[in-house]
Amino acid sequence: MLTLDRIYQAAHVLKECARKTDIIPCANSARDCGLYLKTENLQITGSFKVRGAYFKIAMLSDGEKAEGVIACSAGNHAQGVALSAQRMGINATIFIPSIAPLSKIEATKRMGADVILIDGVYDDAYEAAIACQKERGGVFIHPFDDEDVIAGQGTISLEILEQLPGLDAIVVPVGGGGLISGIAFAVKKLNPLCKVYGVQAAGADSMVHSLENRGKTNLSHISTFADGIAVKSPGTATFELCAQYVDQIVTVTDDEIATAILTLMEEQKLVAEGAGAVAVAAVLFDKLPVNGKKVCAIVSGGNIDVNILSRVISRGLLTTGRLSELKIEMLDKPGQLKEVSAIIADMGANVVKVMHNPGGENTDIIGCYLHVSMETRNKEHFLAVRQAIRDAGYVIAAE
Amino acid sequence: MLTLDRIYQAAHVLKECARKTDIIPCANSARDCGLYLKTENLQITGSFKVRGAYFKIAMLSDGEKAEGVIACSAGNHAQGVALSAQRMGINATIFIPSIAPLSKIEATKRMGADVILIDGVYDDAYEAAIACQKERGGVFIHPFDDEDVIAGQGTISLEILEQLPGLDAIVVPVGGGGLISGIAFAVKKLNPLCKVYGVQAAGADSMVHSLENRGKTNLSHISTFADGIAVKSPGTATFELCAQYVDQIVTVTDDEIATAILTLMEEQKLVAEGAGAVAVAAVLFDKLPVNGKKVCAIVSGGNIDVNILSRVISRGLLTTGRLSELKIEMLDKPGQLKEVSAIIADMGANVVKVMHNPGGENTDIIGCYLHVSMETRNKEHFLAVRQAIRDAGYVIAAE
Repeated sequence: MLTLDRIYQAAHVLKECARKTDIIPCANSARDCGLYLKTENLQITGSFKVRGAYFKIAMLSDGEKAEGVIACSAGNHAQGVALSAQRMGINATIFIPSIAPLSKIEATKRMGADVILIDGVYDDAYEAAIACQKERGGVFIHPFDDEDVIAGQGTISLEILEQLPGLDAIVVPVGGGGLISGIAFAVKKLNPLCKVYGVQAAGADSMVHSLENRGKTNLSHISTFADGIAVKSPGTATFELCAQYVDQIVTVTDDEIATAILTLMEEQKLVAEGAGAVAVAAVLFDKLPVNGKKVCAIVSGGNIDVNILSRVISRGLLTTGRLSELKIEMLDKPGQLKEVSAIIADMGANVVKVMHNPGGENTDIIGCYLHVSMETRNKEHFLAVRQAIRDAGYVIAAE
Repeated sequence: MLTLDRIYQAAHVLKECARKTDIIPCANSARDCGLYLKTENLQITGSFKVRGAYFKIAMLSDGEKAEGVIACSAGNHAQGVALSAQRMGINATIFIPSIAPLSKIEATKRMGADVILIDGVYDDAYEAAIACQKERGGVFIHPFDDEDVIAGQGTISLEILEQLPGLDAIVVPVGGGGLISGIAFAVKKLNPLCKVYGVQAAGADSMVHSLENRGKTNLSHISTFADGIAVKSPGTATFELCAQYVDQIVTVTDDEIATAILTLMEEQKLVAEGAGAVAVAAVLFDKLPVNGKKVCAIVSGGNIDVNILSRVISRGLLTTGRLSELKIEMLDKPGQLKEVSAIIADMGANVVKVMHNPGGENTDIIGCYLHVSMETRNKEHFLAVRQAIRDAGYVIAAE
């Protein structure tokens, strides 16, 4: 049985290992609520997951510790278990699906774990981990469906309630539900007036369906780039806790998550992974009744592969109208490139790339296209630039 | 005359406005010192500059405040002055060179300043600002060569000395020298055993030359992407303070800065701009005698244009051997692509892009090139993959 006592005990134990991460206010006056960020992306290992893993492992008996621990994860849980085991001087064997990014595999190895790469996806690695546990022994550390893991994650809410007096709501990313279960349990015991909202990726909304169906529901297919919350089914314990203590769970799209990641980078100078940005995305895109409220969004982790981050930046710039593309039909006669450039400059946009290829293989003999990529302030600004080019007599072929 | 009293007064005044930013330890055991980051990139406005600007403006007389303030900057100082003036309800006119990124111009406008765009570079905007001040009045807020501005920046060291007892050294980015002057003055008064090191971009090392020449030295040409410290000459006051109180100033290259930015993103989940990452770069690349020491590097700002950040990520991945490119000569016969792919996979590298264009315009009739981009662990790993492909009988055309 999860108790408040257990969460306080976890907070005490975690002083050995976890950082009390800072709260950072979002200054942007464009939002209708006072938004604060709990920066668990700045936690050691780059994610809150070390809290649950460390507390769980610390509570094992000496005999269990001697056997070592086993986990299966491509990401934050792997690093949380590896670092915790290293700190306590015990063996950790981590099964990682071979599709995981090299950077995450390397990070887990650096923390001293035995890493076993398994061909395939998460489910394949999970089966291998369970088989290994049966054969060789050791304690399997579940990423979320475990009361000590949940108690460890719940310590975040003790810090938040102390750091933000008078808080109206906490917004929490939800995958398997370990984080929100711990937080909702503690918050509703300590300050029942404070709302606890969950956020899932629209392409992996198993907890939303489970709550609607009043029973654990397994998704056959999931699709989101927020790999930290790409989970097909909630846990048994986490489903029960969410059903009892969580006020509402909403979803955000991958494009909304990408925009939130970009916003966190530009406005707050924080690197968030997809899962880490869903709570902020829900507030940014008005998914929750928090107008005029004092709200804390948990930025739960920052372990995003930089190659993916580059793509997220490009995508975010395009969807917010900050980077725009135009394909303009041109007659191949002198002065047109100059004229279009002048219109764009006069409108205050900034050309970053031009492709103008008269005589290229796919053009007519006398006509051709000008491809322009430009920085614009927002969608309205882009539309105004496009209109100005049309007003000058040009035909826009496509964007 | 700068005094410790003035810096303590600044610290008191700044409680109204600036955040006491967190110290974050760098966990990576690969480094030979205990490295801590003072995260001024998480300061409001995304940079420490608001400290000096706010204190300077707060110390103006009511008459001066009524006239408003004028500044010239394309970046952090602009936002620091704009926000400070907004908070105190006075007018700010900021001259910005038109080459500045749209995002910075927009950010300054959002903080309520009158923004005047001047065609050209910083020097043109500076002349326009001075001309405006002479014509219309108002107080010009210098970005660094002003004792109240320096006192404001010095408040950072009061926080660091309290947050990190037993500190051996502070490493500080240096452009015009405002930040390091305030820090070195306070540290040497309060804890003379703590070293204060400065870091400049190799392409903008005016303070290094000035100290060597024992006199303020003006660079005719500067070149670095770290725009926050791209300054041709130190100030009069800042040069004197550096000559008296700073232990040593070193330089880092743009590639070293790019690697530091990437490291901060990946390991610490922090977005730093070029100027903000030079202190970390100096520690990473062993430019300073800090082995075995407890060291604090100041991450002074995070206002980097995301388009530039994308390029920095790519550059950093290439220079650290994390992203590698190979151009392999191939006979246009079946099975070769498959064979090379297998070699790369067996070596544990991950192909992210392939271009294979038999019959393309620049290839021979019977031969062609395979262009491969792949994720590798580091340079050694890349060299091993390349050797394995050579051992299989292929010719590497270029990288």
